[in-house]
Amino acid sequence: MNPAQTGLKKWHKVMEGGNAPAALAAIIAEDAAFHSPVVHTPQQGRALVVAYLAAAGQVFADSQFTYQREIVDGNQAMLEFTAEIDGVHINGVDIIQFDDGGMIKDFKVMVRPLKAVNKLWKMMAAQLQAAQAHPSKA
Amino acid sequence: MNPAQTGLKKWHKVMEGGNAPAALAAIIAEDAAFHSPVVHTPQQGRALVVAYLAAAGQVFADSQFTYQREIVDGNQAMLEFTAEIDGVHINGVDIIQFDDGGMIKDFKVMVRPLKAVNKLWKMMAAQLQAAQAHPSKA
Repeated sequence: MNPAQTGLKKWHKVMEGGNAPAALAAIIAEDAAFHSPVVHTPQQGRALVVAYLAAAGQVFADSQFTYQREIVDGNQAMLEFTAEIDGVHINGVDIIQFDDGGMIKDFKVMVRPLKAVNKLWKMMAAQLQAAQAHPSKA
Repeated sequence: MNPAQTGLKKWHKVMEGGNAPAALAAIIAEDAAFHSPVVHTPQQGRALVVAYLAAAGQVFADSQFTYQREIVDGNQAMLEFTAEIDGVHINGVDIIQFDDGGMIKDFKVMVRPLKAVNKLWKMMAAQLQAAQAHPSKA
């Protein structure tokens, strides 16, 4: 298995467990970056990447989140997903770059259509705020 | 070369020529579909796919549009790009599915951040309207 395949296997396992922060921290490189679908500036460092992916796990918990296709090439992978939240269809991609050990170095998310971007923006902001107010539940 | 590599070579050539409609029509399958970053419902058929990609060519004409990375796997490819229009940073992906002959079967675009989605929505609507009003310039 190449680094992307090794990394994807771990990623899928962490997702099955609901994106638990400790499990996320174990597969994310210390200097990793997260690029949200909404904001231009990346979130730098393991702690922030964990916080965003844990929040996403909560937001998509009951959304019928399903990966539809996978494009894997060297250390990189694009995973396309569909989901539905409050009747809003969400189609998006996780573009993940792994280091040579299969740890996540860079995680970028884009979604369509416009309605989905707006929906996720609100849900993620609320979830990140809730996690800050109750860190034990993050 | 596999179908995606053959198809990508043609696509890059068509882009260098500014997405001319006749050149686009020659590399797009008759039953192709285009999925915009803004609208959920796909645009079906070669004529509509050509119209959208030609409009995109106009919208990005002076935007310093640059492909940043390419993930290629079997018949599929993800091309990530950056551009800038009126000071708005645009980061997006073209996710292209090719048929076995290297013709474009499915073309999906997603962009980030939110500002870029809103900007492109306005620009594309104006461009598609202008092309309809002056078909010779499309």
